[in-house]
Amino acid sequence: MPLDTPADYEPLTERTLPAYLAGLPAARAELGGAPQDWRVKEVGDGNLNLVFLVEGPAGGLCVKQSLPYVRLVGEGWPMPLSRAFFEYRWMQEHGRHAAGRLPCLYHYDERMYAIVMERLAPHVIMRRAMIEARRFPLFAEHMAAYTARTLFFTSDLGMGASEKKTMTALFCGNSALSKITEDLIFTEPYMVAARNRWTAPQLDAIAAEFRVDAALKLAVSRLKNKFLHSAEALIHGDLHTGSIMVTEKDTRVIDGEFAFVGPMGFDLGAIVGNLLLNYFAQDGHAGAGDSREAYQEWVLSAMEEFWGRFERNFVELWRHEARGDAYPAALFADPASLAALDAERQTDMARLFADTLGFAGAKMIRRILGLAHNIDLEWIADPDARALCETRCLRFARELMVGTPRYRAIAEIAAAARAAREDIGGIRG
Amino acid sequence: MPLDTPADYEPLTERTLPAYLAGLPAARAELGGAPQDWRVKEVGDGNLNLVFLVEGPAGGLCVKQSLPYVRLVGEGWPMPLSRAFFEYRWMQEHGRHAAGRLPCLYHYDERMYAIVMERLAPHVIMRRAMIEARRFPLFAEHMAAYTARTLFFTSDLGMGASEKKTMTALFCGNSALSKITEDLIFTEPYMVAARNRWTAPQLDAIAAEFRVDAALKLAVSRLKNKFLHSAEALIHGDLHTGSIMVTEKDTRVIDGEFAFVGPMGFDLGAIVGNLLLNYFAQDGHAGAGDSREAYQEWVLSAMEEFWGRFERNFVELWRHEARGDAYPAALFADPASLAALDAERQTDMARLFADTLGFAGAKMIRRILGLAHNIDLEWIADPDARALCETRCLRFARELMVGTPRYRAIAEIAAAARAAREDIGGIRG
Repeated sequence: MPLDTPADYEPLTERTLPAYLAGLPAARAELGGAPQDWRVKEVGDGNLNLVFLVEGPAGGLCVKQSLPYVRLVGEGWPMPLSRAFFEYRWMQEHGRHAAGRLPCLYHYDERMYAIVMERLAPHVIMRRAMIEARRFPLFAEHMAAYTARTLFFTSDLGMGASEKKTMTALFCGNSALSKITEDLIFTEPYMVAARNRWTAPQLDAIAAEFRVDAALKLAVSRLKNKFLHSAEALIHGDLHTGSIMVTEKDTRVIDGEFAFVGPMGFDLGAIVGNLLLNYFAQDGHAGAGDSREAYQEWVLSAMEEFWGRFERNFVELWRHEARGDAYPAALFADPASLAALDAERQTDMARLFADTLGFAGAKMIRRILGLAHNIDLEWIADPDARALCETRCLRFARELMVGTPRYRAIAEIAAAARAAREDIGGIRG
Repeated sequence: MPLDTPADYEPLTERTLPAYLAGLPAARAELGGAPQDWRVKEVGDGNLNLVFLVEGPAGGLCVKQSLPYVRLVGEGWPMPLSRAFFEYRWMQEHGRHAAGRLPCLYHYDERMYAIVMERLAPHVIMRRAMIEARRFPLFAEHMAAYTARTLFFTSDLGMGASEKKTMTALFCGNSALSKITEDLIFTEPYMVAARNRWTAPQLDAIAAEFRVDAALKLAVSRLKNKFLHSAEALIHGDLHTGSIMVTEKDTRVIDGEFAFVGPMGFDLGAIVGNLLLNYFAQDGHAGAGDSREAYQEWVLSAMEEFWGRFERNFVELWRHEARGDAYPAALFADPASLAALDAERQTDMARLFADTLGFAGAKMIRRILGLAHNIDLEWIADPDARALCETRCLRFARELMVGTPRYRAIAEIAAAARAAREDIGGIRG
């Protein structure tokens, strides 16, 4: 039985898309020529949606449309069409604060749940490029600016309370997507669940161990609780390296359909956790004449640069652009109070660092024991080699979540990652 | 120039109310007889709204209607009519979980922004009764049950995430009322602000001291930040002793127009802080032959009983009725995990205790240095006697906010309050 959809909605196809786009002046202008000149390709490499790339004589476009179900699974897993609306609103909100870091938005169609946006070329998905050991010298700087600006300006430090409540209320409507995160990241990897999978039998023992690891389950539950109630800022909500497109000179964030007002550390942890996943996965891609050690050091340095720049950017914004209702400037005018507030900024960054480590760990574990895996690890063909990398990831992720207070600086995380790579199973050459 | 209001809205008067109520079957049934038999009195002792008490042959009613401005101030301070809608929704939500602790709701009129509810008799406002040193043996038990049940069942422990997001989104619409709290409690008492007032010149020095007290301003700003972003549960939002009506046998909570999804400690701190305010104020009401010392001990014992019962109730609900998405039961099935979860409940209660102390302190200070004062202190006629009580309150409140981690149990707060009463200015006989 097909799922109910609004009368005006129908899924686009390669055949129907040109006529659809011909009705949108912004799309016609971008593509040039006439509909018969436009080449359409459905690429849908995401798990959830239809995605079309369109090429015309003058330029290209990307069209992303919601389906009433999860594309990867089919009609057995219904999913609200409205996720396209929330991605569109995310593009508006984050686009305002991080101009140039998102695709340009050309059109949102509220009846078709379709977004017409810039086609990014020659950008590649960061995750795929990292598997090929490609370096992106501006990635850390760009992502630090993106996260600092979007998180700051949508938090109570950067936005007035009334405006923030309006934004929060709107994105509460995206709860079905948040629920996916709640289940797949914070819950199912730590229990017997039908959707879980892992490299078996190699990881059977550690998966079983994690399911009775009380300290780990408390840690992930505290993180889940924070995810459920801590409305700090409008977050992307799925900011792994598969949601980042890069060139040597440019960095763009895509796929904001999981956006909601939640804890800042969730976005920051997604970046840190996915860099660490790739770091540990490299040993599975290395081979004779293809040492990945130098690249692994680049990954760690990108992680360190990302966090260091994020922290500096965020504190600078707090010092100079704090127009929200939290920590009102009127209370911190005298020199002693200004000094105390500056110390508080550092304290708050330490708190955010701890949140980031915890969420990073949770993001790593779900990619190995839960439903949705990463090609960083999946593309390691030899299951023993994969399982070794995955075991290192799992142990390290657990340490990030359970041993969080032991780490005060991002350089300590890099050092601990190096040590973890050596400790478990030696280093594969 | 009168403020804009919807076409269907008009403020009720003693003259127009009977005809209005005659159109409501629930009201007619409650009052009995005919409109000409009904006696109406506008009592409006709140600061914001119209409040009518109506007596008929069979029974009574209370009608509360929003005005488009703050009643106490006039049209110069506009305020959304919708606060009646949020109070009505609060009555529904909290009424579901704490049956018997709120007035019965008979009718909500969305065009008139009017609530028709039970007339509470022979109940009196707790604050007034406390000034007369009256004891209410069930107050602590009733309020502990009310707070534990309403906070638990509207939190992520007791409510599913999707339902909670819907509730959160709805109450985000009450941001104008939250803004009053943000300004009047967490901001203005700590700066020079036109709306501030205090017992002058006696408190001039301490008010000035607080305005440059960096540690205190950080503490109150952290609490404000929590108030702004921590969507823990649907809270009453103004749960002082003036929002509680009592008899020897009954306790009811009224005036939920400030309700929103915020930090639980704000409601708990309102109760603790207002009991402490009364405790310190009693010395200003004592006189020859009217020692208040025994009553002061009753106030402290009520505070201790309230917190102790709240904590036990909340933990019991968490053990037996946790049907929300936080700390999912599926993760805590084995004995070690169950034990760890039970330890976590205690940890979380300690965290909530700390929040409660901080918010209690903030609630005390705003009543002495801010706009809205308490009759507990205002009714002390001698300004020197009042200032002495107020100084004890202010010093104690500061300690609750800045020295929070020094206190682990409510009995320590009672002991510290006794010591504070003796330390500052001795005890007036």
